[in-house]
Amino acid sequence: MTATHPYIDQHLSRFTAELMEMLRIPSVSADPQYKEQVLRCAHFVENCFKTMGLDGVEVIPTKGHPIVYGEKIIDPSLPTILVYGHYDVQPADPLELWHSPPFEPVIKPTNIHPKGAIFARGACDDKGQFFMHLKAVEAMLSSDELPCNVKFMIEGEEEIGSEHLGYFVHENKAKLAADIILVSDTGMLANDVPSVTTGLRGLSYVEVEVTGPNRDLHSGLYGGCVKNPINALCEMIASLHDEKGKITVKGFYDSVLEISRDDRDAMAKAPFSEEDYKRALDITDTYGEEGYTTPERGSIRPTLDVNGMWGGYIGEGAKTVIASKANAKISMRLVPNQDPEEITRLFQDHFERIAPTGVNVKVTPHHGGHAAVTPLDSIGYQAAAMAYKETFGKEAIPVRSGGSIPIVAMFEQVLGLKTILMGFGLDSDAIHSPNEHYGLYNFEMGIKTIPYFFKHFVELSKNQ
Amino acid sequence: MTATHPYIDQHLSRFTAELMEMLRIPSVSADPQYKEQVLRCAHFVENCFKTMGLDGVEVIPTKGHPIVYGEKIIDPSLPTILVYGHYDVQPADPLELWHSPPFEPVIKPTNIHPKGAIFARGACDDKGQFFMHLKAVEAMLSSDELPCNVKFMIEGEEEIGSEHLGYFVHENKAKLAADIILVSDTGMLANDVPSVTTGLRGLSYVEVEVTGPNRDLHSGLYGGCVKNPINALCEMIASLHDEKGKITVKGFYDSVLEISRDDRDAMAKAPFSEEDYKRALDITDTYGEEGYTTPERGSIRPTLDVNGMWGGYIGEGAKTVIASKANAKISMRLVPNQDPEEITRLFQDHFERIAPTGVNVKVTPHHGGHAAVTPLDSIGYQAAAMAYKETFGKEAIPVRSGGSIPIVAMFEQVLGLKTILMGFGLDSDAIHSPNEHYGLYNFEMGIKTIPYFFKHFVELSKNQ
Repeated sequence: MTATHPYIDQHLSRFTAELMEMLRIPSVSADPQYKEQVLRCAHFVENCFKTMGLDGVEVIPTKGHPIVYGEKIIDPSLPTILVYGHYDVQPADPLELWHSPPFEPVIKPTNIHPKGAIFARGACDDKGQFFMHLKAVEAMLSSDELPCNVKFMIEGEEEIGSEHLGYFVHENKAKLAADIILVSDTGMLANDVPSVTTGLRGLSYVEVEVTGPNRDLHSGLYGGCVKNPINALCEMIASLHDEKGKITVKGFYDSVLEISRDDRDAMAKAPFSEEDYKRALDITDTYGEEGYTTPERGSIRPTLDVNGMWGGYIGEGAKTVIASKANAKISMRLVPNQDPEEITRLFQDHFERIAPTGVNVKVTPHHGGHAAVTPLDSIGYQAAAMAYKETFGKEAIPVRSGGSIPIVAMFEQVLGLKTILMGFGLDSDAIHSPNEHYGLYNFEMGIKTIPYFFKHFVELSKNQ
Repeated sequence: MTATHPYIDQHLSRFTAELMEMLRIPSVSADPQYKEQVLRCAHFVENCFKTMGLDGVEVIPTKGHPIVYGEKIIDPSLPTILVYGHYDVQPADPLELWHSPPFEPVIKPTNIHPKGAIFARGACDDKGQFFMHLKAVEAMLSSDELPCNVKFMIEGEEEIGSEHLGYFVHENKAKLAADIILVSDTGMLANDVPSVTTGLRGLSYVEVEVTGPNRDLHSGLYGGCVKNPINALCEMIASLHDEKGKITVKGFYDSVLEISRDDRDAMAKAPFSEEDYKRALDITDTYGEEGYTTPERGSIRPTLDVNGMWGGYIGEGAKTVIASKANAKISMRLVPNQDPEEITRLFQDHFERIAPTGVNVKVTPHHGGHAAVTPLDSIGYQAAAMAYKETFGKEAIPVRSGGSIPIVAMFEQVLGLKTILMGFGLDSDAIHSPNEHYGLYNFEMGIKTIPYFFKHFVELSKNQ
């Protein structure tokens, strides 16, 4: 690949400028107000595909936001790599905590990014990361060094559970036929500690509503006489963990595959400092399930967290009201063998059962997904490890992540393909938070590492 | 009072129109955005005072919203009645639950108001009620039947704790000198069951903030590893009541004066149907402190309720975030002998003590007030009872209310005056809620009952 890397060096500042242009589009999939912007972003990706010379470029409508597809088939007898990514982003609120507007990307120096970082919603998750694949393939095409076929499928609903992707994949098995799926939507341990995510947690996300009296009441006249829906919801949520940090939802742990002591010992070799972790988050202590370390709690154990809660008067000042309703968004991270639909059902049953008298409870499932694991002896994982070694000069560490990319399990089920998660983000990139950013060094290293994955994957495939 | 009542009948529709004009002014004291509107409403009241012929009319600035004052001194040797009310209103949200805009008053028929009701924020609390006094005095003045001196003090901060009224009263003891204070800011049991509020609960209102990590986190990566501030706040709130419905704040009940069995038996004579109560609120069961009836829980017992709570992502759809902060507004209703400042301090100490490791807690006091009780053998109470008998044809029932008008205790302390609470609202008027309304029958009966209070109070004063 003698021409690809010089091409990348030569065009890197243009690549950055193009990414920043895409980051100006507020493609927030969760909020219907941004529907047009999400579509605009799909067309931006379409345009990139066309400019770089892909064939069969399409913006494919779904019942939600569209999927952008493009491909380059150089020889049907060669392996095919299917690149997946998503052009939608998380909502940007709370806006007041951003130091610069979320959709006006700026490059600023940071303590840990040697070349500074782009600050914008979606910079790391996932625009900055999927865009690396476009630019890597552009570089290989322009240098006549693309070693195999490539297909791109970039969707617009990842942040809302990829609701319509499953149907699309199901209906387009032939179109999407490939040998491996390649995704950059995760992180690595540090800029000098490359890693490949080999496990992902599953997800069950629900919304709950607790209803008490049929209208908001004056808390002076009714206080102490009726079950207050907010107090009731607090009690119910508080009861979802026991004093050992275990989740009390009946049956929740029944299907969990316990990890062997050996595997836990292997995991424990990854560098981790509890003190640094606490300092970075400015917390006096960590918290979690008794009997597990912080990295274990965040990867191999299922969890339950409230992601949002609201009820009653939340404006300025004081209002003496007993709200008629209280609401919460609750998500559970799942581990291999836990079925998200079953967990959602168990939660629903449990939550309805623990409702105190005087209130009614409604549980609405949002979305879910299975956990997934990539075997270390697969040629996909091997090719990734070799690619990192070429650019970073050291072997990548396999890491089980706490996050969820539910579609990874779906791809395996529907297309029969394993997914390789070559993420170049850092833990501190504040994805899903105010001031999300992505290091320019990471962006560059991603674009340079990806062609090596292509090369080694093709070579390892030949030897099979 | 042979001329006053015909005058009222003749001018009643104009009175209603004037009230509706005032209700169009969104004088929401809690929200700084409405500051100008609050001031506009003060000038509206000033104008009413001038038009009806009061002297010494002033809009008196405070550090917050102004107080409107006016008086008619016909003979310094006669008794003086000081009328108190408030022209500010509660915030109108949730707006989507109003059937007509909160500041566009409309008259609609209802099942229980013989002449229909005016629907608007502040219709009952307290614009519709304090306005009755203006119109009653206008009628007596116009008919040459005002039997004593009258002073009006209408403030603009009742809904936010009357923060600057205490200072004003303190500085104007001579100006406010009177024999009794008369207030209509409470309710009566039913349109055919007149009642006088003889007890009010005190209040301590606080806002709490729980802070965990220094930024919002991705719940996949951090879920299960850090104490989630929303979950923590839920646990803390849940622990504020025990399984008997008792408040667990240390020392909370220490100064409560227990009510005698006799007094509880007397209270139990007021008509009350638990079934009707549940049906009206559409709840399967009531809830409260073990060992007390629903009316007792709502009047003679102290309580604690969450009035608002928020944290994390509360928009549409799903966001997998662990919030950095969670907040709640919490109020406690107090009974005689509980000191609001002490209770606030006890709450603060307790809440900080129960914070789990990994989060920090901040408690900010909003406002408070003492409970108050009016003796049934006072001439003020007697005059009220006789006034109701004149218009309703039956004795008023003395009622201990669960609400708080903290200034009643302050008036007694600073001015040495008892307050008579002649409220004409109904429980179902939805004060502090969407679709607040006030019956036109109640408005009329109020205007007609008030002159009888003046008359009987002057007569009873002579005999003392």
